[in-house]
Amino acid sequence: MSILVVGSVALDTVKTPFGEVDDALGGAAVYFSAAASFFSPVNLVGVVGNDFDVSQLDFLKSRHVDLRGLETREGQTFRWGGVYLDDLNTRETTFTHLNVFEQFQPKIHDEYKDSETIFLANIAPELQLDVLRQVNSPKLVALDTMNYWIDGSLPALKELLKQVHVLIINDSEAKQLSGKTNLVSAARVIQTMGPKVLIIKKGEHGALMISEDFSFFSVPAFPLKSICDPTGAGDTFAGGFVGYLAQAGDFSDKHFRQALVCGSTMASFCCEKFSLDRLVDLSQQEIQDRYRAFWEMTTFDPELRGL
Amino acid sequence: MSILVVGSVALDTVKTPFGEVDDALGGAAVYFSAAASFFSPVNLVGVVGNDFDVSQLDFLKSRHVDLRGLETREGQTFRWGGVYLDDLNTRETTFTHLNVFEQFQPKIHDEYKDSETIFLANIAPELQLDVLRQVNSPKLVALDTMNYWIDGSLPALKELLKQVHVLIINDSEAKQLSGKTNLVSAARVIQTMGPKVLIIKKGEHGALMISEDFSFFSVPAFPLKSICDPTGAGDTFAGGFVGYLAQAGDFSDKHFRQALVCGSTMASFCCEKFSLDRLVDLSQQEIQDRYRAFWEMTTFDPELRGL
Repeated sequence: MSILVVGSVALDTVKTPFGEVDDALGGAAVYFSAAASFFSPVNLVGVVGNDFDVSQLDFLKSRHVDLRGLETREGQTFRWGGVYLDDLNTRETTFTHLNVFEQFQPKIHDEYKDSETIFLANIAPELQLDVLRQVNSPKLVALDTMNYWIDGSLPALKELLKQVHVLIINDSEAKQLSGKTNLVSAARVIQTMGPKVLIIKKGEHGALMISEDFSFFSVPAFPLKSICDPTGAGDTFAGGFVGYLAQAGDFSDKHFRQALVCGSTMASFCCEKFSLDRLVDLSQQEIQDRYRAFWEMTTFDPELRGL
Repeated sequence: MSILVVGSVALDTVKTPFGEVDDALGGAAVYFSAAASFFSPVNLVGVVGNDFDVSQLDFLKSRHVDLRGLETREGQTFRWGGVYLDDLNTRETTFTHLNVFEQFQPKIHDEYKDSETIFLANIAPELQLDVLRQVNSPKLVALDTMNYWIDGSLPALKELLKQVHVLIINDSEAKQLSGKTNLVSAARVIQTMGPKVLIIKKGEHGALMISEDFSFFSVPAFPLKSICDPTGAGDTFAGGFVGYLAQAGDFSDKHFRQALVCGSTMASFCCEKFSLDRLVDLSQQEIQDRYRAFWEMTTFDPELRGL
């Protein structure tokens, strides 16, 4: 089944210990689409300014991403700047210019209204709610949000969460949203807010999924010899995750687990180069190989003998 | 095969958000022995002051821990105090009184000199070297150390590492010892120093093993609903790890993996109560069940179909 993603298309200026890029293609919807497109067709809804060179998205088109929902407005494209410090775990935002993204009002075209799988990338919860009002009973809605909205738009976020199946957030956001410092307790509070499945992203420490029956599934991050640029890893993770589920068309625990590994697989590639460079030249075989490497890195004999 | 452990026996004064204890039984050699004793016989070498109530160790005796190597000296027992803050990830040491431990000179009794499996808990590298001088060609030497010795006793530590098969340290210590910020690079540097196998403890984020062939094995921490007191979790981890290997008597990759899960299993129990309280009342069946829970928490289908 195809996926509808609504979120940012951006130009990023990023500096890491390994180099820097200016006005490189980025944005949550772009990273998500690039990753998800390896698994399923994707329909992207977003906005760019009239300064945006649409040919930058040619590789998405070649990967069956439908860009008819990408609006061009008078003005500048959303721009973000960030610097990563030595260990790449600390990021400082140098600037955020919302530009045309400030007035973004997602309009869902008729042909997307029956989307069965939806990813609401990190934007204002009010806009995310508005997207859900425009579509007809999707089978799977996955949501990203951030501390800014938990602080400033909690009522809308809580209203939204009632309609969400999967919430994908990081560990500090899970603690903030739930008011709990223990992740297990945090997960249980959040699940009462609506999402049956909670995915907690932990960056270099991998990801944890808490399912409807409160069972856990954990996947490590892939130990990379060199991490060039972590920008977009979270949205790439979401792309692999939702992309796999849409392709499987089966939302059982078995497939949710495989989806989490696909998310981690795609995120690991994302970090290897700047911008979307690694996703552009990625092959299906490389995805298969790394998925298998995750399995080899985590498998052990389930029988403990001799005790 | 039986295990020789050399390290501290202590009385800990610990405060966490869940309560506090004064002069509770602790020390690396005690936590290690308690955990390892579920798998193999253990011989403990350490020192206490004449203020120490030896009946506190009765449960270790009942678990086949040989305490003939525990010396009693004139003076006070090693005491340590610490406070854990809200999220239990931050610990402040309130005091360290080495007392009789300051003059500790481990003497290995003749009946322990043929020990095939040795755990050198965190003490001065010079003393750890001295232990190895007293024993006859052990098959497996596992070592713990800390930032204090990496800073202050690096030459002795490097000499020691040449004779060590498994180094068990935390992630910041691995980075410090290697001078690398990337864990993969850090592991490769450390492996050239001697240890064929490196175990990196990451606290609430689990543990990572890098084997002789540079392959990785990752195990998460067990998601506990409530963590009471993490004191001793690292040594309990080492106890489960080394204990399992000594019992298996087989140092193949398959068993190293199972050992890492046993270490994580024992560490998870340790955190559930203060001091060694949870290990005292632990059953073999509970260990089996949690080991299996680790498997259920990490298993997924190795075949990625449909790409």
